[in-house]
Amino acid sequence: MLNFEFHNPTKIIFGKNTIKELDRLVGKQARVLIVYGKGSVKKYGTLDKVKSALKGRDIFEFEGVEPNPRYETLMKAVEIVKKKNITFILGVGGGSVMDGTKFVNLAANYKGEDKTDLLKGEYEVESVIDMGMVLTLPATGSEMNCGAVISYGDGKFPVKHNLSYPIFSILDPEITYTLPKKQISNGIVDSFVHVTEQYLTYPVGGIVQDRMAEGILLALKDIADKTLNNPTDYEARSNLVWSSTLALNGIIGKGVPQDWMTHVIGHEITALYGLDHGQTLAIILPAVMDIRRKEKREKIVQYGERVFDIKTGNIDEIIKATRGFFNSLGLKTKLGDYGIKEEDIEKICNNLIRHKRDNLSETGDVTTPIIREILKKAF
Amino acid sequence: MLNFEFHNPTKIIFGKNTIKELDRLVGKQARVLIVYGKGSVKKYGTLDKVKSALKGRDIFEFEGVEPNPRYETLMKAVEIVKKKNITFILGVGGGSVMDGTKFVNLAANYKGEDKTDLLKGEYEVESVIDMGMVLTLPATGSEMNCGAVISYGDGKFPVKHNLSYPIFSILDPEITYTLPKKQISNGIVDSFVHVTEQYLTYPVGGIVQDRMAEGILLALKDIADKTLNNPTDYEARSNLVWSSTLALNGIIGKGVPQDWMTHVIGHEITALYGLDHGQTLAIILPAVMDIRRKEKREKIVQYGERVFDIKTGNIDEIIKATRGFFNSLGLKTKLGDYGIKEEDIEKICNNLIRHKRDNLSETGDVTTPIIREILKKAF
Repeated sequence: MLNFEFHNPTKIIFGKNTIKELDRLVGKQARVLIVYGKGSVKKYGTLDKVKSALKGRDIFEFEGVEPNPRYETLMKAVEIVKKKNITFILGVGGGSVMDGTKFVNLAANYKGEDKTDLLKGEYEVESVIDMGMVLTLPATGSEMNCGAVISYGDGKFPVKHNLSYPIFSILDPEITYTLPKKQISNGIVDSFVHVTEQYLTYPVGGIVQDRMAEGILLALKDIADKTLNNPTDYEARSNLVWSSTLALNGIIGKGVPQDWMTHVIGHEITALYGLDHGQTLAIILPAVMDIRRKEKREKIVQYGERVFDIKTGNIDEIIKATRGFFNSLGLKTKLGDYGIKEEDIEKICNNLIRHKRDNLSETGDVTTPIIREILKKAF
Repeated sequence: MLNFEFHNPTKIIFGKNTIKELDRLVGKQARVLIVYGKGSVKKYGTLDKVKSALKGRDIFEFEGVEPNPRYETLMKAVEIVKKKNITFILGVGGGSVMDGTKFVNLAANYKGEDKTDLLKGEYEVESVIDMGMVLTLPATGSEMNCGAVISYGDGKFPVKHNLSYPIFSILDPEITYTLPKKQISNGIVDSFVHVTEQYLTYPVGGIVQDRMAEGILLALKDIADKTLNNPTDYEARSNLVWSSTLALNGIIGKGVPQDWMTHVIGHEITALYGLDHGQTLAIILPAVMDIRRKEKREKIVQYGERVFDIKTGNIDEIIKATRGFFNSLGLKTKLGDYGIKEEDIEKICNNLIRHKRDNLSETGDVTTPIIREILKKAF
């Protein structure tokens, strides 16, 4: 097991009818900015519940954080934070809204003039405004970690800061019932691949981490079909919500190597061709397993046996089972399925080079020639 | 899944040579009280390492926290905290020292005159002194939770407070290499039973909690023999240390029922007959499974299948496997093995009544007649 530090100060409030707890969690004198997306929180009444729980406070709203939240959009919210002397920022939404909310908070409290410094990792922030989240879409784990991914130009940039842990996050599985099936499929894949990025590497004797990672994968497999086809099945949905948080709150990834290659390549594909994040993961993970079968052999075989009950150690069979799982959620696993052509591979590779993301994998040895192979395998 | 709140602010620093991090973690101006046990931290050099890392601070020591730490002992440390204007309390030891350290901190900051109020749960404390831990014995999980068990008179009293989470805990598996085999056996059983207390109840659809709980049990089973017989095997020992923390840091027990019956009955046996805590658990858990086979049926069968690969659903077989695991660690599983007689059952029952602990189990329906049956089964 590798040496590690683990610290996750976010408080989780989980369960039915928990939005009302905002009244206890947010100071009575707070000037609150509610950050949300394109209106579904309005349509389905979540925003009303939030505002009703916050009654008595000065409430401001910022509507319009898009999927893959954009720098320019978020900077408009930063203006409101400053102009209105906001003392509490509340993100109400899925990963994009929560990531955006974290960025708004950091940018509003960064003293440098050029806020794009945050995208380059060249900044210092000493304190931020209190911040909480109300989750509406289980997928990214952003509700219980300090990371965000922000889109700017043709790139997606990770922004991670110790001050970006929400003080609290409210997770009410029932408010996710109205989500379209496609978003649930994407969320299941995103959660699943968050686990594999912290697990399908090389063995370092992280026996308990492995077992817990496998536990989340097994839980996701157990409930996937049910929660997709019967969205109001509370048991299945609540397990999806909690699993997706556990998948990326740090607990399974400490003390073991991590390989975020599938995410990084996926981000470029989203930025270039507009595929959903989950769609890109379902395509890239099997290709990564295929090309990296030697380097990841021990862990792939263990995963096959413990998650898919494949005892042969046959890696092709294990990849097939993984694709089969993604397919069962209604997701395709080939780039060609989305009209992307083999000649597009170079574009993706070039963008990775331009964004200085051409040293991937748990050991940093995956450079452009191997990335090219992986992308070829994704056809 | 049940509604829940989860919040665990303790920072974990895990791995080889991590004691030196104290220099970064404890303020340079701090007046530090180091709390420890009966000298093994002196004998094996841990205390020297701690003091060397804290060089430059004003350091005070309190030696002599006993196993099952006693109120009277701890009150002597409370005096030092007050007299010496201590600003940081550092526990260096196992569960007893860490529990004791938490109590010292609460008692020193409780304004009421009679500090036994803390044992009755009748107290308010608004703030405490900064507190950290250096773990020397993996077992209780006290390094990453807010609970303590304090002995007073002939009873053991749980003392739990939100302010009792250590700010940090340092977990260096290598400093546990010198522990006697018996303490490792006890630690494995304690960790194992921490998991079962949060798992062998009735099903509420906590699918991911179950999978993660099983993951810890499987990890403990995997490494038990190795870490007992080859204490310097870092892989096995590091997994024991991290598993024992994960077993009781809240993550597996949120959203599911809990039944601390095995611990509560065990505490009375320790208080009356001086058995080690782990020894009592190895005796009582199998008896609880036996007598509560109907109420816990679904979860026992699931545990049998997933942890011991018993597919028959035969509960006797599952209990036998559990006993077999404890025996393999060198622990006995019968009260008679320790010279306790059947006529002692009434003493144990009477003490439970006197301590108002005669409404046990996840549903509170286990009263004296059932406790008596459980104790009979433990012969």
